Amino acid sequence: MPPQRRIDVVFDSVKRLQRIGATANLVNLLQKQHPADLADVFASLPDRNRRSVFDTLLDHNSRLAMESLAELEPEVGAAMLVDHPPDRLALLFQDLPSDDAAALLDNLPDDLSTSVIDLMRKKESGEVQHLLEYDDQTAGRIMNPNVFALAEDLTVGQAIEELQRSREVEMVFYVYVVDARRHLVGVVSLRRLLLVSPETPLKRVMTSDLISARVDTDQEEIAREVAAYNLLAIPVVDEENKLVGIITVDDVIDVIKDEATEDILRLAGVSADEHVLTGPFESWRKRLPWLGINLVTATLAAMVVRQFQATVEQVVALAALMTIVASMGGNAATQTLTVVVRGIALGELTWSNSRRVLGKETLVAIGNGLVLGGVGAGIAWWLAGNPYLGGILALAMLINLIVAAVAATLIPIALRALKIDPALASSVFITTLTDVFGFFAFLGLAAFFLGRI
Amino acid sequence: MPPQRRIDVVFDSVKRLQRIGATANLVNLLQKQHPADLADVFASLPDRNRRSVFDTLLDHNSRLAMESLAELEPEVGAAMLVDHPPDRLALLFQDLPSDDAAALLDNLPDDLSTSVIDLMRKKESGEVQHLLEYDDQTAGRIMNPNVFALAEDLTVGQAIEELQRSREVEMVFYVYVVDARRHLVGVVSLRRLLLVSPETPLKRVMTSDLISARVDTDQEEIAREVAAYNLLAIPVVDEENKLVGIITVDDVIDVIKDEATEDILRLAGVSADEHVLTGPFESWRKRLPWLGINLVTATLAAMVVRQFQATVEQVVALAALMTIVASMGGNAATQTLTVVVRGIALGELTWSNSRRVLGKETLVAIGNGLVLGGVGAGIAWWLAGNPYLGGILALAMLINLIVAAVAATLIPIALRALKIDPALASSVFITTLTDVFGFFAFLGLAAFFLGRI
Repeated sequence: MPPQRRIDVVFDSVKRLQRIGATANLVNLLQKQHPADLADVFASLPDRNRRSVFDTLLDHNSRLAMESLAELEPEVGAAMLVDHPPDRLALLFQDLPSDDAAALLDNLPDDLSTSVIDLMRKKESGEVQHLLEYDDQTAGRIMNPNVFALAEDLTVGQAIEELQRSREVEMVFYVYVVDARRHLVGVVSLRRLLLVSPETPLKRVMTSDLISARVDTDQEEIAREVAAYNLLAIPVVDEENKLVGIITVDDVIDVIKDEATEDILRLAGVSADEHVLTGPFESWRKRLPWLGINLVTATLAAMVVRQFQATVEQVVALAALMTIVASMGGNAATQTLTVVVRGIALGELTWSNSRRVLGKETLVAIGNGLVLGGVGAGIAWWLAGNPYLGGILALAMLINLIVAAVAATLIPIALRALKIDPALASSVFITTLTDVFGFFAFLGLAAFFLGRI
Repeated sequence: MPPQRRIDVVFDSVKRLQRIGATANLVNLLQKQHPADLADVFASLPDRNRRSVFDTLLDHNSRLAMESLAELEPEVGAAMLVDHPPDRLALLFQDLPSDDAAALLDNLPDDLSTSVIDLMRKKESGEVQHLLEYDDQTAGRIMNPNVFALAEDLTVGQAIEELQRSREVEMVFYVYVVDARRHLVGVVSLRRLLLVSPETPLKRVMTSDLISARVDTDQEEIAREVAAYNLLAIPVVDEENKLVGIITVDDVIDVIKDEATEDILRLAGVSADEHVLTGPFESWRKRLPWLGINLVTATLAAMVVRQFQATVEQVVALAALMTIVASMGGNAATQTLTVVVRGIALGELTWSNSRRVLGKETLVAIGNGLVLGGVGAGIAWWLAGNPYLGGILALAMLINLIVAAVAATLIPIALRALKIDPALASSVFITTLTDVFGFFAFLGLAAFFLGRI
């Protein structure tokens, strides 16, 4: 967001040219942009302008328009197409890579996407339908079925000739080798083909020990493998080890970004598919349930306080001090929760070391509780003029920090074991837990030692 | 973290073999692993075992040991080397890619890294020192200076011969073309070299319109470009446009993951370099300051409550209800803050649309405030038996949600404009702000309407 970004300048010009109706200049400017930059421009435009600018480009350069659409989140891209007639969409979709077409079709209304698929050329619609049969977020769904493979009985020279003939396959850097029944048997890099004489059989230069993914592998697992083993692409095979597609590193980068966004948003109690530019009504609809849950849990915390109303009535300073205990617990829990959830996502937290992590978090909580409880006791003494009240605050804070650490470690680990996204243990739940427990510990101790304070 | 992960089995065997002292079997097992998997094993071992397993591998297969070290976070990797004598380290480091060596050296104690650099072969130590001169997190620091480039006056045939001679350069898929003074003038893909006849001059087949990065470009910007334009590598040039290095997509993936981790952790008030396996003492030392800040801000909130002590004394139900207003504000602020910070990181929130985002967040807050304030009023009426108290709670909640939305939108945008990481506007600050404001709005209104409640 630095003020000088080139894309901001383009964006301002687009808005201006559209406002004054200078279509020729607008098309001219749009055509000079990279599809990824155009996607940024579309994403930044208000809903009402976005479609009209897109339609202008679509009329003059449909290829570029569709390429830029493929760079957007599919639900955003699909929303820009809903008003076009099915036959036009069919023409546009059959020229797209089938993984991009599948992602867009999956986000169109059901009846529209059915008509579009019916109107597409048979080859392309078959590919797209096949992709849509795989579950969301699996290798099968995100792979490109258009993968370059060669028969194992070719020579290197023949392989190079094949490569020269197949100009349209995107981003070739590995050549996969298959047997007569299309089972994946090996891989050879483009570079290696250059280094050996043309008569060498492919079999002799290929590596047969290669990493592949099954169609039903989760996309997060694929991202982890591509990242760990520094791959540029991973071949995808079906249940019988037949080669059916390829996932390239650029798609993996999108997965990594999406998964990180999902974790960040879920931790904060926001739907995984919300974006900063999601419309106000939709954002409201998506956030309200989380805040509704929080209203319920906050009411629970308030009811705990109400239980001790008699105690608070006698020592009204408790009302001010209890908020300190709750606030510290909430923030400490958020720290632990975040470190643990991120550790799970990065694969650093495994079963083997989860006990060690629990021990560590407990130790950290005790350390923080002793130091901050001590300071807090001083603050309470100063605010309320009573040393015993300080002692109670310190003890409640220590207990609450330990509870926060244990809960914020164990809940995400348990969720993961139950195959639920650990990031759903969002701060909404954890902070309420520490509110409830903080109020209970502090006011309970205060009620118990009421004679002293 | 699924229980059946292969790496967990390896990990358990490593621990067992080390415990019973079966060194030969241990080395055997370790040697069969991919460096990335070994890095996972090392990361999961307790500190005391990690170094001894690593040293065992280092004695038998130093190349694999160092490759796995390079896959770890550099501060973790460096910690495993500090006890080795400088002359041994010099031998090990000069065989590493210089970007990996630089990252490790940068994390060794200063006197040790100086002695190691002095003892390294001149060529390698020169490269490493050169890299270390660039700022942290810039292209210069993370690039590999060992980039494959060809003179522009070669033919395609000569280029292929050059390629065949340079077996050691890592991951070649683009060949960069430079002029006599090593200015970057073009790029040609390996695939294109295969498609044209050997006599063609390189100049005729290269693309001269290419994306490059300057040595001082921020690594986050590089990651954004590589991701947006689906690049496999980006060439790095100095101030005079001379080619000095290359950043490959596998390094970019690391940057993307690190930056996402940084954002997630900072939002929660955790240091960007903390990991789930960071030792308890270091974690405590890193988290304490954030919680210390929170103690100060929570005390401020408590002092606001204390200001209204007389009001609370008269209507003690206020003590329970005020926590609902504060909790709702805190969670709503966390939602907005997270969406905004992530939007900035993904490049979706720009100057051009920041006003629109502010408007949207305010609308969402009003929507949430009306619905949840209404429900909250009912709850307050039920808990405290007073309809006026319900009205006050609803009004305070609405005001606090609007304040939360505006603050959580503007503060990160302002930080970004000041070139401070917007994720530093962590929940610690924002939730306290909503605590302070929530208590003030609710108790202030209650004091004002005291006659009615």
